[in-house]
Amino acid sequence: MASGGGNFFEDFTQGVTIPHGPPRTLGEGDQSLYTALYGSRFTIQSSTPAARAIGYRRAPLDDLLVFHCVFGQSVADISLNAVANLGYADCRFHAPVYPGDTLEARSTVIGLKENSNRKTGVVYVRTEGFKEDDERVLDYIRWVMVRKRDPEAEVGPPQVPELPTQVAVDSLVLPAQLKVSTARLGDLRGTAWEDYEAGDRIDHRDGVTIEEAEHQMATRLYHNTARVHFNHHVEKDGRFGRRIVYGGHVISIARALSYNGLSGAFHILAINGGSHTAPSFAGDTIYAWSEVIEKLAIPGRADLGALRVRTVAAKDRACGDFPYKDAAGSYDPAVVLDLDYLVLLPRRG
Amino acid sequence: MASGGGNFFEDFTQGVTIPHGPPRTLGEGDQSLYTALYGSRFTIQSSTPAARAIGYRRAPLDDLLVFHCVFGQSVADISLNAVANLGYADCRFHAPVYPGDTLEARSTVIGLKENSNRKTGVVYVRTEGFKEDDERVLDYIRWVMVRKRDPEAEVGPPQVPELPTQVAVDSLVLPAQLKVSTARLGDLRGTAWEDYEAGDRIDHRDGVTIEEAEHQMATRLYHNTARVHFNHHVEKDGRFGRRIVYGGHVISIARALSYNGLSGAFHILAINGGSHTAPSFAGDTIYAWSEVIEKLAIPGRADLGALRVRTVAAKDRACGDFPYKDAAGSYDPAVVLDLDYLVLLPRRG
Amino acid sequence: MASGGGNFFEDFTQGVTIPHGPPRTLGEGDQSLYTALYGSRFTIQSSTPAARAIGYRRAPLDDLLVFHCVFGQSVADISLNAVANLGYADCRFHAPVYPGDTLEARSTVIGLKENSNRKTGVVYVRTEGFKEDDERVLDYIRWVMVRKRDPEAEVGPPQVPELPTQVAVDSLVLPAQLKVSTARLGDLRGTAWEDYEAGDRIDHRDGVTIEEAEHQMATRLYHNTARVHFNHHVEKDGRFGRRIVYGGHVISIARALSYNGLSGAFHILAINGGSHTAPSFAGDTIYAWSEVIEKLAIPGRADLGALRVRTVAAKDRACGDFPYKDAAGSYDPAVVLDLDYLVLLPRRG
Repeated sequence: MASGGGNFFEDFTQGVTIPHGPPRTLGEGDQSLYTALYGSRFTIQSSTPAARAIGYRRAPLDDLLVFHCVFGQSVADISLNAVANLGYADCRFHAPVYPGDTLEARSTVIGLKENSNRKTGVVYVRTEGFKEDDERVLDYIRWVMVRKRDPEAEVGPPQVPELPTQVAVDSLVLPAQLKVSTARLGDLRGTAWEDYEAGDRIDHRDGVTIEEAEHQMATRLYHNTARVHFNHHVEKDGRFGRRIVYGGHVISIARALSYNGLSGAFHILAINGGSHTAPSFAGDTIYAWSEVIEKLAIPGRADLGALRVRTVAAKDRACGDFPYKDAAGSYDPAVVLDLDYLVLLPRRG
Repeated sequence: MASGGGNFFEDFTQGVTIPHGPPRTLGEGDQSLYTALYGSRFTIQSSTPAARAIGYRRAPLDDLLVFHCVFGQSVADISLNAVANLGYADCRFHAPVYPGDTLEARSTVIGLKENSNRKTGVVYVRTEGFKEDDERVLDYIRWVMVRKRDPEAEVGPPQVPELPTQVAVDSLVLPAQLKVSTARLGDLRGTAWEDYEAGDRIDHRDGVTIEEAEHQMATRLYHNTARVHFNHHVEKDGRFGRRIVYGGHVISIARALSYNGLSGAFHILAINGGSHTAPSFAGDTIYAWSEVIEKLAIPGRADLGALRVRTVAAKDRACGDFPYKDAAGSYDPAVVLDLDYLVLLPRRG
Repeated sequence: MASGGGNFFEDFTQGVTIPHGPPRTLGEGDQSLYTALYGSRFTIQSSTPAARAIGYRRAPLDDLLVFHCVFGQSVADISLNAVANLGYADCRFHAPVYPGDTLEARSTVIGLKENSNRKTGVVYVRTEGFKEDDERVLDYIRWVMVRKRDPEAEVGPPQVPELPTQVAVDSLVLPAQLKVSTARLGDLRGTAWEDYEAGDRIDHRDGVTIEEAEHQMATRLYHNTARVHFNHHVEKDGRFGRRIVYGGHVISIARALSYNGLSGAFHILAINGGSHTAPSFAGDTIYAWSEVIEKLAIPGRADLGALRVRTVAAKDRACGDFPYKDAAGSYDPAVVLDLDYLVLLPRRG
């Protein structure tokens, strides 16, 4: 009887698209939980009048809530037997998601490469999220190391996709009908594109301590069933002696902290890439800082501008001195997240 | 001044109906919390389009959320002075409950039996839950051992009701207008009735560790005020040295785990009986397995079928070898729940 | 780069009004979380049919959820650099808040007084909360001790406002269109004004143990960013060696407990004053008791009456003997909250 054992490396076939499930109708309650779990305060996701003032139908759901739900749906098919989540790239948000929308997800296998020990292999997928009318809301590439069921199983030749280091700017999608009139700029209650220069570094100051109940509730909210997050009975004897926090939980903490200094960055356009450089656990206190990598004007838009930002999260270490890599390129041991992404801000015009 | 001291054994009178309160309007937010607390992934409760595809008005609330809210309303009147919750039987779900519906509950005393020590007695009630238009949504028999206020108080002769071991099949209620066309079967994203045979045993694989904050939030969401769940200051000196988890919390964990292998079982029709064979506490990791006891065709319906299932939950012990009872009929010490119930699945036709 | 460092004492100017942000659209999900966090069971906030029966449009949000959200919005501007939250007074609730309403807040500086050590000063503000159509829903005076950025900074002469010890009865606002017909009294499922006399003391009986995940989720839900509630890494070396629970969390626990004995007190009209007499921490078990200070008839209303109530919360100590102050006027060391407020109840007419 099939009971959710998940796929092993040799179960994946290049080019095949795997529909995930079940779909998930998201509502106001999910956004309330997101707020309670992270304390996110970006105006557009917090206030329906402010969202309407710039062209949204109502306050959209948080971009990362959408990301986590699409990711979560894919876990049972893609990464239940994963050893490690290696990275993601080329992630774009295509359309706002509102309470009442239903998300479905599917993944296409775009690469397969067995490891030399023959016990594991790397699976590359492009995962896509859709609304019920097939409007695409999100896609991203993810690669993950997956166990083989049988190390002796024969598999095909390696096929490794080209991974873009950065989302192509001309493939970015602005939320439809978005228009920030100068008169409504005050409604956004945050910073503007003109407040930043490439090279700016921002300490997000606050630190938040993760609790087991919090990361478990978050991860379940996303329908993410990866076992390492929930089972102390097994994990107490595992590599770390305890449950591991879903990496996306740390991304959401860092994004919420980044309001201190990036309050105008109301929408994530794209994620160029992200690394979970070390695992996080309950009891860790997460801090974050950001660097503005690049300022991007948006052709034809005087009301909106983009920033390419690197946000770095560290645990049990304040970020006033911007911990990152040493001269040899190794991460500071406190760093747990290195995220390279594009955010949208209003311009003063 | 009345301040919620609850009823004692001698306060109950055979045949009397006790209205509970306050009513509880359930909403999307309650279902979101239910998802965050248990990670339930059954398609019909997760997706409004899927629910509509088979005749629901929208995604209904989880059956057990309804059960817990009706049960929770009854606690202040029935079991605040309980020593032990002895069992339930003859539980039927009569109608789907949607966000916006308001639940009220009442219980009728159907049996009373003083114990020989005269300090306690067993109270048998039939508890019913209604929507605001008096549509019945749930009823069940429950019996509970309740303290006497005064051991010397005289009480009436014992009256013990007949307890059905199984819900009568002809009293089961299918959700109104439910119709699974073969064309929409794929929308359900789960198993079908034909996938099971009586005797099948299914390991639900995953284990989830209970946190104090989780079971407390759940139990409060249900307006259940039983003190043993919330008060460490008292319980640290009590029988177990810590707070006891509401038994229904474990039922919901087991039901959510059962998605691994019973993904098509989208609706609980009835609960024949359930026993909390041992208490659960924060820190316990709950696993579960199920056995298909019986396959039941539904007269006149080629699109739906029922399974009688036993789901067993165990703590700190994986269930790959289906722990249950020993030769003498005693439960494996790891077992915490033995639940006998009927679920509805689509048929392939 | 501004990154949320907050205002210091010398940044405040007498008479200046500070708009807070971002606004917060509250929904059903926020009320569901409030229920899960506190277990509040007051009928009007629990049941839309009951709320409609006495003139509300639907079940309003809990009064204290509104208070906490307005308070939370003010923290980043008023008290991020606070040493101590000294008190509040003259708090009135002006209008019910419903799911879908958006709250905005602003504070006006009504007093400033540097302390003799020149390191800190007391800031007095009147904070007001509004709906998006500028309807005022809440106002209160709060005073808080705030650090100076630079002890040498010159500041103006002391200006200390007059603080009312009690909200003026003629300034109280009844929720619009509220009308309790005798026929609907049963719908409220609680006590009535006639059940109380001045001097009544009520033990609320139950005790609830606070968990870190609970108070953190609550405080984030309110957009309250005060650091002491979230950062174990810093607080482990701080004055108490651990995170401090937001005082409002304890107020909400005490209010929810007060349902045992004050079940008819469906609305808070005003808060005369409140003191957090000792800090609370995760692991504390909170109990509460209340005294009816005064019965207030409402001119022209035979259907509603008010009670002035003192609710006292204590930690790790049952309240059957009503712990409060000793002969010298010092609080019992277990007491953590002393709240003086006005509640509205139905009258039997």
